[in-house]
Amino acid sequence: MAGYVSEAVIRRLPGYYRHLRELEAEGVRQISSQGLGERMKLTASQIRQDINCFGGFGRQGYGYSVQELREHIGMILGVDRVHRMVILGGGNIGRAVALSDSFPANGFQTLAIFDADPGKIGTTIGSILVRDIETLTDFLREQPVDIAVLAVPPPQAQEVADDLCRNGITAIWNFVPADLKLPPNTTVVNVHLEEGLEILSFKMKQKET
Amino acid sequence: MAGYVSEAVIRRLPGYYRHLRELEAEGVRQISSQGLGERMKLTASQIRQDINCFGGFGRQGYGYSVQELREHIGMILGVDRVHRMVILGGGNIGRAVALSDSFPANGFQTLAIFDADPGKIGTTIGSILVRDIETLTDFLREQPVDIAVLAVPPPQAQEVADDLCRNGITAIWNFVPADLKLPPNTTVVNVHLEEGLEILSFKMKQKET
Repeated sequence: MAGYVSEAVIRRLPGYYRHLRELEAEGVRQISSQGLGERMKLTASQIRQDINCFGGFGRQGYGYSVQELREHIGMILGVDRVHRMVILGGGNIGRAVALSDSFPANGFQTLAIFDADPGKIGTTIGSILVRDIETLTDFLREQPVDIAVLAVPPPQAQEVADDLCRNGITAIWNFVPADLKLPPNTTVVNVHLEEGLEILSFKMKQKET
Repeated sequence: MAGYVSEAVIRRLPGYYRHLRELEAEGVRQISSQGLGERMKLTASQIRQDINCFGGFGRQGYGYSVQELREHIGMILGVDRVHRMVILGGGNIGRAVALSDSFPANGFQTLAIFDADPGKIGTTIGSILVRDIETLTDFLREQPVDIAVLAVPPPQAQEVADDLCRNGITAIWNFVPADLKLPPNTTVVNVHLEEGLEILSFKMKQKET
Protein backbone atom coordinates (compact mmCIF):
# COMPACT_ATOMS: atom_id res chain seq x y z
CA MET A 1 0.00 0.00 0.00
CA ALA A 2 1.60 3.18 -1.21
CA GLY A 3 1.93 6.04 1.25
CA TYR A 4 -0.79 7.42 3.47
CA VAL A 5 -4.09 5.60 3.64
CA SER A 6 -7.00 7.30 5.35
CA GLU A 7 -8.76 5.72 8.32
CA ALA A 8 -11.95 5.60 6.20
CA VAL A 9 -10.25 3.44 3.55
CA ILE A 10 -8.76 1.20 6.22
CA ARG A 11 -12.20 0.71 7.72
CA ARG A 12 -13.55 -0.34 4.31
CA LEU A 13 -10.81 -2.96 3.75
CA PRO A 14 -12.55 -5.78 5.69
CA GLY A 15 -15.73 -5.13 3.70
CA TYR A 16 -13.83 -5.51 0.44
CA TYR A 17 -12.23 -8.66 1.74
CA ARG A 18 -15.57 -10.17 2.75
CA HIS A 19 -17.32 -9.33 -0.54
CA LEU A 20 -14.43 -10.67 -2.60
CA ARG A 21 -14.45 -13.92 -0.61
CA GLU A 22 -18.19 -14.21 -1.18
CA LEU A 23 -17.76 -13.53 -4.92
CA GLU A 24 -15.02 -16.14 -5.11
CA ALA A 25 -17.27 -18.65 -3.33
CA GLU A 26 -20.00 -17.84 -5.86
CA GLY A 27 -17.56 -18.66 -8.68
CA VAL A 28 -17.28 -15.07 -9.98
CA ARG A 29 -13.84 -14.58 -11.55
CA GLN A 30 -13.93 -10.98 -12.81
CA ILE A 31 -15.78 -7.96 -11.53
CA SER A 32 -16.04 -4.36 -12.69
CA SER A 33 -15.80 -1.39 -10.35
CA GLN A 34 -19.49 -0.84 -11.19
CA GLY A 35 -20.45 -4.39 -10.17
CA LEU A 36 -18.43 -4.31 -6.98
CA GLY A 37 -19.83 -0.86 -6.21
CA GLU A 38 -23.43 -2.04 -6.53
CA ARG A 39 -22.69 -4.91 -4.21
CA MET A 40 -20.93 -2.76 -1.63
CA LYS A 41 -23.22 0.25 -1.99
CA LEU A 42 -20.35 2.48 -3.11
CA THR A 43 -19.98 4.33 -6.40
CA ALA A 44 -17.80 2.85 -9.13
CA SER A 45 -15.46 5.83 -8.87
CA GLN A 46 -15.15 5.33 -5.09
CA ILE A 47 -14.22 1.69 -5.71
CA ARG A 48 -11.60 2.68 -8.31
CA GLN A 49 -10.14 5.28 -5.96
CA ASP A 50 -9.95 2.82 -3.06
CA ILE A 51 -8.37 0.10 -5.16
CA ASN A 52 -5.83 2.50 -6.62
CA CYS A 53 -5.02 3.36 -3.07
CA PHE A 54 -4.36 -0.34 -2.31
CA GLY A 55 -1.68 -0.45 -4.98
CA GLY A 56 -3.12 -0.17 -8.50
CA PHE A 57 -5.06 -3.06 -9.95
CA GLY A 58 -7.16 -4.01 -12.94
CA ARG A 59 -6.96 -2.78 -16.49
CA GLN A 60 -9.35 -0.28 -18.02
CA GLY A 61 -12.30 -2.22 -19.42
CA TYR A 62 -11.29 -5.60 -18.01
CA GLY A 63 -12.42 -5.22 -14.42
CA TYR A 64 -10.65 -6.86 -11.54
CA SER A 65 -9.66 -10.46 -11.03
CA VAL A 66 -11.64 -11.45 -7.93
CA GLN A 67 -9.01 -13.90 -6.73
CA GLU A 68 -6.05 -11.55 -7.25
CA LEU A 69 -7.80 -8.67 -5.56
CA ARG A 70 -8.94 -10.86 -2.65
CA GLU A 71 -5.41 -12.19 -2.18
CA HIS A 72 -3.93 -8.70 -2.40
CA ILE A 73 -6.35 -7.23 0.15
CA GLY A 74 -5.86 -10.27 2.39
CA MET A 75 -2.12 -9.57 2.26
CA ILE A 76 -2.65 -5.89 3.08
CA LEU A 77 -4.83 -6.92 6.04
CA GLY A 78 -2.23 -9.47 7.09
CA VAL A 79 -4.82 -12.25 7.16
CA ASP A 80 -2.68 -14.37 4.83
CA ARG A 81 -0.73 -15.40 7.91
CA VAL A 82 -1.58 -17.30 11.08
CA HIS A 83 -2.25 -15.28 14.24
CA ARG A 84 -1.92 -17.07 17.55
CA MET A 85 -4.36 -15.83 20.18
CA VAL A 86 -5.12 -16.28 23.84
CA ILE A 87 -8.46 -15.35 25.36
CA LEU A 88 -8.56 -13.72 28.78
CA GLY A 89 -11.87 -14.51 30.44
CA GLY A 90 -14.00 -17.59 29.82
CA GLY A 91 -17.32 -15.76 30.22
CA ASN A 92 -19.99 -15.16 27.58
CA ILE A 93 -17.79 -13.13 25.25
CA GLY A 94 -14.69 -15.30 25.68
CA ARG A 95 -16.85 -18.35 24.94
CA ALA A 96 -18.36 -16.79 21.82
CA VAL A 97 -14.91 -15.94 20.45
CA ALA A 98 -13.53 -19.38 21.34
CA LEU A 99 -16.46 -21.21 19.73
CA SER A 100 -16.53 -19.19 16.50
CA ASP A 101 -15.70 -21.16 13.37
CA SER A 102 -14.87 -18.11 11.32
CA PHE A 103 -11.88 -16.90 13.30
CA PRO A 104 -9.79 -20.10 12.94
CA ALA A 105 -10.94 -20.37 9.31
CA ASN A 106 -9.24 -17.00 8.79
CA GLY A 107 -6.03 -17.97 10.54
CA PHE A 108 -6.89 -16.63 14.00
CA GLN A 109 -6.09 -19.63 16.20
CA THR A 110 -6.93 -19.65 19.89
CA LEU A 111 -4.27 -21.48 21.90
CA ALA A 112 -5.73 -21.11 25.37
CA ILE A 113 -8.35 -19.42 27.53
CA PHE A 114 -7.42 -18.01 30.93
CA ASP A 115 -9.83 -17.48 33.78
CA ALA A 116 -9.65 -17.00 37.54
CA ASP A 117 -12.78 -19.07 38.32
CA PRO A 118 -11.84 -22.47 39.84
CA GLY A 119 -15.11 -23.83 38.42
CA LYS A 120 -13.95 -23.05 34.88
CA ILE A 121 -10.23 -23.87 35.14
CA GLY A 122 -9.51 -27.29 33.66
CA THR A 123 -12.70 -27.41 31.60
CA THR A 124 -12.69 -26.97 27.83
CA ILE A 125 -14.62 -24.55 25.64
CA GLY A 126 -14.94 -26.19 22.27
CA SER A 127 -11.59 -27.97 22.23
CA ILE A 128 -9.70 -25.23 24.05
CA LEU A 129 -8.50 -25.71 27.61
CA VAL A 130 -9.38 -23.09 30.21
CA ARG A 131 -6.22 -22.43 32.24
CA ASP A 132 -5.63 -20.73 35.57
CA ILE A 133 -4.93 -17.05 34.95
CA GLU A 134 -2.11 -17.37 37.48
CA THR A 135 -0.24 -19.42 34.86
CA LEU A 136 -0.52 -16.73 32.16
CA THR A 137 3.03 -15.40 32.55
CA ASP A 138 4.56 -18.87 32.28
CA PHE A 139 2.43 -19.66 29.24
CA LEU A 140 3.44 -16.46 27.44
CA ARG A 141 7.11 -17.13 28.16
CA GLU A 142 6.88 -20.53 26.50
CA GLN A 143 4.51 -19.87 23.59
CA PRO A 144 4.64 -17.19 20.94
CA VAL A 145 1.31 -15.37 21.05
CA ASP A 146 0.32 -12.57 18.67
CA ILE A 147 -3.02 -11.35 19.97
CA ALA A 148 -4.74 -11.29 23.34
CA VAL A 149 -8.53 -11.17 23.43
CA LEU A 150 -9.49 -9.29 26.58
CA ALA A 151 -12.90 -10.29 27.98
CA VAL A 152 -12.46 -10.17 31.75
CA PRO A 153 -14.70 -8.24 34.16
CA PRO A 154 -13.97 -4.47 33.96
CA PRO A 155 -12.35 -4.18 37.42
CA GLN A 156 -9.69 -6.74 36.43
CA ALA A 157 -9.06 -5.42 32.91
CA GLN A 158 -6.18 -3.02 33.57
CA GLU A 159 -4.26 -5.47 35.73
CA VAL A 160 -4.59 -8.27 33.19
CA ALA A 161 -3.64 -5.88 30.36
CA ASP A 162 -0.53 -4.85 32.32
CA ASP A 163 0.41 -8.52 32.73
CA LEU A 164 -0.06 -9.13 29.02
CA CYS A 165 2.07 -6.16 27.98
CA ARG A 166 4.82 -7.01 30.49
CA ASN A 167 5.00 -10.42 28.85
CA GLY A 168 5.44 -9.25 25.31
CA ILE A 169 1.86 -8.98 24.03
CA THR A 170 1.59 -6.00 21.68
CA ALA A 171 -1.89 -6.52 20.21
CA ILE A 172 -5.13 -6.56 22.20
CA TRP A 173 -8.69 -7.11 20.99
CA ASN A 174 -10.51 -5.48 23.87
CA PHE A 175 -14.13 -6.31 24.67
CA VAL A 176 -14.04 -4.66 28.10
CA PRO A 177 -15.86 -1.31 28.26
CA ALA A 178 -12.85 0.41 29.79
CA ASP A 179 -10.12 2.67 28.44
CA LEU A 180 -6.94 0.76 29.07
CA LYS A 181 -3.65 2.51 29.74
CA LEU A 182 -1.24 0.67 27.49
CA PRO A 183 2.38 1.11 26.42
CA PRO A 184 2.70 3.11 23.17
CA ASN A 185 3.85 0.07 21.17
CA THR A 186 0.57 -1.77 21.88
CA THR A 187 -2.06 -2.01 19.18
CA VAL A 188 -5.60 -2.15 20.47
CA VAL A 189 -8.97 -2.54 18.78
CA ASN A 190 -11.91 -1.91 21.10
CA VAL A 191 -15.26 -3.64 20.69
CA HIS A 192 -17.73 -1.95 22.98
CA LEU A 193 -20.89 -3.92 22.34
CA GLU A 194 -23.07 -1.64 24.47
CA GLU A 195 -22.18 1.25 22.23
CA GLY A 196 -23.76 -0.52 19.26
CA LEU A 197 -27.06 -0.81 21.11
CA GLU A 198 -26.86 2.79 22.27
CA ILE A 199 -26.24 4.02 18.72
CA LEU A 200 -29.18 1.90 17.56
CA SER A 201 -31.36 3.42 20.28
CA PHE A 202 -30.21 6.93 19.25
CA LYS A 203 -31.01 6.32 15.59
CA MET A 204 -34.44 4.88 16.45
CA LYS A 205 -35.20 7.99 18.46
CA GLN A 206 -34.00 10.26 15.66
CA LYS A 207 -36.44 8.61 13.25
CA GLU A 208 -39.37 9.34 15.53
CA THR A 209 -38.90 13.09 15.26
CA MET B 1 -30.15 18.14 20.21
CA ALA B 2 -30.19 21.23 18.06
CA GLY B 3 -29.92 20.79 14.31
CA TYR B 4 -27.40 18.68 12.45
CA VAL B 5 -25.05 16.51 14.45
CA SER B 6 -22.12 14.90 12.67
CA GLU B 7 -21.67 11.13 12.60
CA ALA B 8 -18.39 11.62 14.51
CA VAL B 9 -20.19 13.33 17.40
CA ILE B 10 -22.87 10.63 17.41
CA ARG B 11 -20.20 7.97 17.61
CA ARG B 12 -18.67 9.70 20.63
CA LEU B 13 -22.00 9.87 22.54
CA PRO B 14 -21.80 6.36 24.05
CA GLY B 15 -18.27 7.14 25.24
CA TYR B 16 -19.51 10.25 27.04
CA TYR B 17 -22.34 8.26 28.52
CA ARG B 18 -20.01 5.52 29.80
CA HIS B 19 -17.48 7.93 31.30
CA LEU B 20 -20.19 9.97 32.99
CA ARG B 21 -21.74 6.83 34.49
CA GLU B 22 -18.30 5.81 35.76
CA LEU B 23 -17.73 9.27 37.24
CA GLU B 24 -21.13 9.16 38.92
CA ALA B 25 -20.31 5.73 40.37
CA GLU B 26 -17.02 7.17 41.66
CA GLY B 27 -18.99 9.90 43.43
CA VAL B 28 -17.70 12.77 41.25
CA ARG B 29 -20.35 15.52 41.08
CA GLN B 30 -18.77 18.22 38.93
CA ILE B 31 -16.24 17.94 36.14
CA SER B 32 -14.49 20.53 33.97
CA SER B 33 -14.11 20.15 30.22
CA GLN B 34 -10.38 19.77 30.94
CA GLY B 35 -10.97 16.91 33.41
CA LEU B 36 -13.42 15.10 31.15
CA GLY B 37 -11.06 15.63 28.21
CA GLU B 38 -8.12 14.06 30.02
CA ARG B 39 -10.27 11.08 30.88
CA MET B 40 -11.62 10.67 27.37
CA LYS B 41 -8.38 11.57 25.58
CA LEU B 42 -9.99 14.58 23.89
CA THR B 43 -9.03 18.24 24.18
CA ALA B 44 -11.02 20.50 26.50
CA SER B 45 -12.16 22.53 23.51
CA GLN B 46 -13.34 19.38 21.72
CA ILE B 47 -15.37 18.46 24.81
CA ARG B 48 -16.89 21.96 24.99
CA GLN B 49 -17.77 21.85 21.29
CA ASP B 50 -19.38 18.42 21.60
CA ILE B 51 -21.39 19.36 24.66
CA ASN B 52 -22.57 22.60 23.07
CA CYS B 53 -23.71 20.46 20.20
CA PHE B 54 -25.76 18.30 22.62
CA GLY B 55 -27.70 21.35 23.68
CA GLY B 56 -25.60 23.79 25.74
CA PHE B 57 -24.60 22.88 29.25
CA GLY B 58 -22.44 24.09 32.11
CA ARG B 59 -21.47 27.57 33.10
CA GLN B 60 -18.09 29.12 32.42
CA GLY B 61 -15.83 28.29 35.34
CA TYR B 62 -18.23 25.89 37.06
CA GLY B 63 -17.77 22.78 34.93
CA TYR B 64 -20.56 20.34 34.28
CA SER B 65 -22.84 18.55 36.70
CA VAL B 66 -21.98 14.89 36.12
CA GLN B 67 -25.49 13.68 36.89
CA GLU B 68 -27.26 16.28 34.73
CA LEU B 69 -24.97 15.69 31.79
CA ARG B 70 -25.27 11.89 32.13
CA GLU B 71 -29.06 12.14 32.25
CA HIS B 72 -29.14 14.51 29.30
CA ILE B 73 -26.90 12.32 27.13
CA GLY B 74 -28.86 9.23 28.21
CA MET B 75 -32.01 10.99 27.02
CA ILE B 76 -30.38 11.92 23.70
CA LEU B 77 -29.33 8.28 23.26
CA GLY B 78 -32.82 7.13 24.21
CA VAL B 79 -31.45 4.82 26.90
CA ASP B 80 -33.71 6.43 29.50
CA ARG B 81 -36.49 4.19 28.22
CA VAL B 82 -36.99 0.43 28.09
CA HIS B 83 -36.27 -1.37 24.82
CA ARG B 84 -37.84 -4.77 24.30
CA MET B 85 -35.67 -7.13 22.30
CA VAL B 86 -35.85 -10.56 20.72
CA ILE B 87 -32.75 -12.52 19.76
CA LEU B 88 -32.73 -14.50 16.53
CA GLY B 89 -30.33 -17.40 16.85
CA GLY B 90 -29.35 -19.14 20.08
CA GLY B 91 -25.74 -19.78 19.02
CA ASN B 92 -22.57 -18.33 20.54
CA ILE B 93 -23.42 -14.70 19.84
CA GLY B 94 -27.10 -14.97 20.74
CA ARG B 95 -26.08 -16.63 24.00
CA ALA B 96 -23.54 -13.92 24.81
CA VAL B 97 -26.11 -11.18 24.25
CA ALA B 98 -28.79 -13.06 26.23
CA LEU B 99 -26.45 -13.69 29.17
CA SER B 100 -25.03 -10.17 29.39
CA ASP B 101 -25.91 -8.31 32.57
CA SER B 102 -25.16 -4.91 31.15
CA PHE B 103 -27.87 -4.84 28.47
CA PRO B 104 -30.84 -5.34 30.84
CA ALA B 105 -29.16 -2.98 33.33
CA ASN B 106 -29.41 -0.33 30.62
CA GLY B 107 -33.03 -1.06 29.79
CA PHE B 108 -32.46 -3.48 26.90
CA GLN B 109 -34.68 -6.40 27.92
CA THR B 110 -34.65 -9.66 26.01
CA LEU B 111 -38.12 -11.22 25.82
CA ALA B 112 -37.32 -14.34 23.84
CA ILE B 113 -34.73 -16.17 21.78
CA PHE B 114 -35.73 -17.89 18.53
CA ASP B 115 -33.89 -20.80 16.95
CA ALA B 116 -34.61 -23.51 14.39
CA ASP B 117 -32.65 -26.23 16.20
CA PRO B 118 -35.03 -28.75 17.90
CA GLY B 119 -32.23 -29.43 20.40
CA LYS B 120 -32.33 -25.81 21.56
CA ILE B 121 -36.07 -25.09 21.36
CA GLY B 122 -37.68 -25.30 24.80
CA THR B 123 -34.39 -24.83 26.68
CA THR B 124 -33.51 -21.61 28.47
CA ILE B 125 -30.47 -19.38 28.13
CA GLY B 126 -30.11 -17.58 31.42
CA SER B 127 -33.79 -17.22 32.24
CA ILE B 128 -34.89 -16.66 28.64
CA LEU B 129 -36.86 -19.32 26.77
CA VAL B 130 -35.63 -20.48 23.37
CA ARG B 131 -38.67 -20.65 21.09
CA ASP B 132 -39.25 -22.28 17.72
CA ILE B 133 -38.44 -19.76 14.99
CA GLU B 134 -41.63 -20.94 13.26
CA THR B 135 -43.56 -19.16 16.03
CA LEU B 136 -41.82 -15.80 15.46
CA THR B 137 -44.66 -14.21 13.50
CA ASP B 138 -47.26 -15.12 16.14
CA PHE B 139 -45.02 -13.82 18.89
CA LEU B 140 -44.44 -10.49 17.16
CA ARG B 141 -48.17 -10.07 16.59
CA GLU B 142 -48.83 -10.45 20.30
CA GLN B 143 -45.89 -8.64 21.87
CA PRO B 144 -44.55 -5.18 21.20
CA VAL B 145 -40.87 -5.60 20.32
CA ASP B 146 -38.51 -2.68 19.64
CA ILE B 147 -35.27 -4.34 18.57
CA ALA B 148 -34.33 -7.64 16.94
CA VAL B 149 -30.83 -8.99 17.51
CA LEU B 150 -29.88 -10.96 14.41
CA ALA B 151 -27.41 -13.76 15.08
CA VAL B 152 -28.50 -16.58 12.75
CA PRO B 153 -26.23 -18.39 10.27
CA PRO B 154 -25.50 -16.15 7.23
CA PRO B 155 -27.56 -18.20 4.72
CA GLN B 156 -30.71 -17.67 6.82
CA ALA B 157 -30.11 -14.00 7.63
CA GLN B 158 -32.01 -12.35 4.78
CA GLU B 159 -35.07 -14.57 5.14
CA VAL B 160 -35.28 -14.00 8.89
CA ALA B 161 -34.73 -10.25 8.39
CA ASP B 162 -37.59 -10.21 5.84
CA ASP B 163 -39.84 -11.96 8.38
CA LEU B 164 -38.92 -9.46 11.07
CA CYS B 165 -39.59 -6.44 8.86
CA ARG B 166 -42.89 -7.87 7.60
CA ASN B 167 -43.97 -8.15 11.22
CA GLY B 168 -43.26 -4.59 12.20
CA ILE B 169 -39.66 -4.70 13.42
CA THR B 170 -37.89 -1.49 12.42
CA ALA B 171 -34.61 -1.81 14.36
CA ILE B 172 -32.05 -4.57 13.88
CA TRP B 173 -28.77 -5.13 15.69
CA ASN B 174 -27.08 -7.32 13.11
CA PHE B 175 -24.21 -9.67 14.01
CA VAL B 176 -24.36 -11.59 10.73
CA PRO B 177 -21.53 -10.76 8.30
CA ALA B 178 -23.97 -10.09 5.48
CA ASP B 179 -25.38 -6.93 3.90
CA LEU B 180 -29.09 -7.18 4.46
CA LYS B 181 -31.59 -5.71 2.06
CA LEU B 182 -34.03 -3.93 4.32
CA PRO B 183 -36.98 -1.56 3.88
CA PRO B 184 -35.92 2.11 4.06
CA ASN B 185 -37.67 2.65 7.40
CA THR B 186 -35.49 0.02 9.11
CA THR B 187 -32.65 1.15 11.35
CA VAL B 188 -29.71 -1.24 11.42
CA VAL B 189 -26.45 -1.28 13.33
CA ASN B 190 -23.99 -3.88 12.08
CA VAL B 191 -21.45 -5.57 14.33
CA HIS B 192 -19.03 -7.47 12.16
CA LEU B 193 -16.72 -9.04 14.71
CA GLU B 194 -14.33 -10.44 12.09
CA GLU B 195 -13.69 -6.93 10.89
CA GLY B 196 -12.29 -5.95 14.28
CA LEU B 197 -9.75 -8.77 14.10
CA GLU B 198 -8.86 -7.89 10.53
CA ILE B 199 -8.30 -4.23 11.44
CA LEU B 200 -6.14 -5.38 14.36
CA SER B 201 -4.14 -7.59 12.01
CA PHE B 202 -3.74 -4.68 9.58
CA LYS B 203 -2.52 -2.32 12.31
CA MET B 204 -0.07 -4.93 13.62
CA LYS B 205 1.36 -5.30 10.14
CA GLN B 206 1.62 -1.55 9.67
CA LYS B 207 3.71 -1.27 12.84
CA GLU B 208 6.22 -3.80 11.52
CA THR B 209 7.21 -1.64 8.60
